[in-house]
Amino acid sequence: MSAGDSLRLLRERRPLVHQITNYVVMNETANATLALGALPVMAHAPEEVEEMVGFAGSLVLNIGTLSSHWVEAMLAAGRAANARGVPVVLDPVGAGATRYRTETAMRILSEVDVAVLRGNAGEVATLAGVTAEMRGVESIGAGGDPADIALTAARSLGVVASVTGPVDHVSDGERTARISNGDPMLASITGTGCMSSAITGCFLAAAPGAFDAAVEALVAFGVAGEDAARDARGPGTFHVNLYDALAALDPDTLDARARVA
Amino acid sequence: MSAGDSLRLLRERRPLVHQITNYVVMNETANATLALGALPVMAHAPEEVEEMVGFAGSLVLNIGTLSSHWVEAMLAAGRAANARGVPVVLDPVGAGATRYRTETAMRILSEVDVAVLRGNAGEVATLAGVTAEMRGVESIGAGGDPADIALTAARSLGVVASVTGPVDHVSDGERTARISNGDPMLASITGTGCMSSAITGCFLAAAPGAFDAAVEALVAFGVAGEDAARDARGPGTFHVNLYDALAALDPDTLDARARVA
Amino acid sequence: MSAGDSLRLLRERRPLVHQITNYVVMNETANATLALGALPVMAHAPEEVEEMVGFAGSLVLNIGTLSSHWVEAMLAAGRAANARGVPVVLDPVGAGATRYRTETAMRILSEVDVAVLRGNAGEVATLAGVTAEMRGVESIGAGGDPADIALTAARSLGVVASVTGPVDHVSDGERTARISNGDPMLASITGTGCMSSAITGCFLAAAPGAFDAAVEALVAFGVAGEDAARDARGPGTFHVNLYDALAALDPDTLDARARVA
Repeated sequence: MSAGDSLRLLRERRPLVHQITNYVVMNETANATLALGALPVMAHAPEEVEEMVGFAGSLVLNIGTLSSHWVEAMLAAGRAANARGVPVVLDPVGAGATRYRTETAMRILSEVDVAVLRGNAGEVATLAGVTAEMRGVESIGAGGDPADIALTAARSLGVVASVTGPVDHVSDGERTARISNGDPMLASITGTGCMSSAITGCFLAAAPGAFDAAVEALVAFGVAGEDAARDARGPGTFHVNLYDALAALDPDTLDARARVA
Repeated sequence: MSAGDSLRLLRERRPLVHQITNYVVMNETANATLALGALPVMAHAPEEVEEMVGFAGSLVLNIGTLSSHWVEAMLAAGRAANARGVPVVLDPVGAGATRYRTETAMRILSEVDVAVLRGNAGEVATLAGVTAEMRGVESIGAGGDPADIALTAARSLGVVASVTGPVDHVSDGERTARISNGDPMLASITGTGCMSSAITGCFLAAAPGAFDAAVEALVAFGVAGEDAARDARGPGTFHVNLYDALAALDPDTLDARARVA
Repeated sequence: MSAGDSLRLLRERRPLVHQITNYVVMNETANATLALGALPVMAHAPEEVEEMVGFAGSLVLNIGTLSSHWVEAMLAAGRAANARGVPVVLDPVGAGATRYRTETAMRILSEVDVAVLRGNAGEVATLAGVTAEMRGVESIGAGGDPADIALTAARSLGVVASVTGPVDHVSDGERTARISNGDPMLASITGTGCMSSAITGCFLAAAPGAFDAAVEALVAFGVAGEDAARDARGPGTFHVNLYDALAALDPDTLDARARVA
């Protein structure tokens, strides 16, 4: 596993990352994808999602502002992705906050073969059947250790579970990696969780192996967060710096900066 | 009334502010809410709005890119908010510009008990039955003094009317406050009106009293605008500075900087 | 033709530019419109598009995140614009990438009298019947010289064709202008193509003549891109600088900086 090598591949290949995501962060995840070095495309019409995903290196589904038409589009795109071997990331924004979000996330997990489930501790715990507490889309008290939540979710849902928070944990049900990169300022702006899902999609499209891709994505995003925080004066400048930092990520030094255990 | 005390409470409690708003500013109002210290959640599906608003400290409805499904969601969320005592802010973007916007704003006002109506002079004048001129969503000539418009709207519509512009006026039908904080650069970017509505929702969720919350929100947002303008080189840097300034607002000095008459 | 004179007129008149555009860039094109000096309005409901476009100086249609309801709204708005003499810009985002996008762009071109078609080489080539290759919404290999594509499209579609890329080409079927302003960083963020369409709408609304407006818009946007790149540290700061640069464009020096052949 090498985040640097994968980033180098990603920038050479510029894979298309098809995203069906929420209204709040569409611009932000598109720009994060571009800054990292891949090509985003946003398309949600039932008339085109199956065709579009055929050109993509990965598909990212995000239920942050879900409604019934969008859920149907996500399911159609997800099934088409599965049929063509395009790996799928699911970001279950707000699972645990309302029944509709929990049920929709479960429905996608049951009808689509999801490679990586990327969420906060409360969201992933909810989907793994562990007690959790959400306030809106924020996790404010997941029942137990996030490493256990990742492991349990990976086993029970048959996915690579990527649980982000102050420290991130990724598990494939056998191995569990702990990623300590990042900065508290990542929690000061909306959409950084969604960006980490988009970046997971970028790494999935660039190099094989869902576990490695999920870990490498969080290393890359965390290192960019550290760089962005350096001279930020608040959430506004941090947000701007984050795109600069993603574009400036150096494949040659990325692995040395990784804090993975 | 103390904007500083309310801001301190808001940051301690981190209330959830449920926003059903327009596509143009969703990211911006979410980030303004977070920067101030509250938690935004965007949810508009009929399957979940009633459940979500039950967790919220306030509900903000904004018709900036309205369509029929969204209007129904706003009405359902508004009625559920009323049933649970969650205060509602209405931002009638573009009322007066098209019949559909005027009628939708009037319909929400008639079916939902709105605590604070926050708009520009043309929008609020239109809803109060006073002649006004709009160019798209900009007010270019409201019939009369904005203090009178605020007072008339508050009385005729039974709301706290919060009329923003070069100088802001808030009235509950008895008292009318004049808030002179702010900076002309706030008019140089889109969505600052919508942000002021979101921030009104934050203050409403933090401390009781719609009149006080509306005034304190405009003081806080205006002071942040003053700080953001200080070293802005244009609308782009002003926009970024605005989030930094909201996050940096100091409860200890906020009241001394308030220009309220 | 003078980009400086047109910009001066635009800032005096502040025309309303009605935009029915995609979710990814709504905030960005609204802010670019405002920064330049015009007034954006986003409205897509069938209940109001015909009324709203009656107040507008131009209409910009953008299919970047199209779906059937939005397409119907674009057609209704386009027909109403035609009936009232309001010029229409079409941005056929992703034409050539999926059948649905190609067919929708062709349908708008057949049912609406489009003044300016603004796209990348792959999109415009597709609509002109020339072989092209798209990766999502990026043009990665259009069949032939972009000047030829612009000329062919202008003649076959009866529009002013505005083909943007490393060098831009605008043709009305007789004349073809080559605009070399701009900076490679414009390709580092999402939505700059969409912004150039919005700015084309601004110039169309300010001064008569679709060919002149299309050329002047690309000069203005390109010069702003050059200014924005000057001290950008990456795509984040470039994006912020771009709004500052649009607002700071100087009508007195703009023509001297134009690189048009």
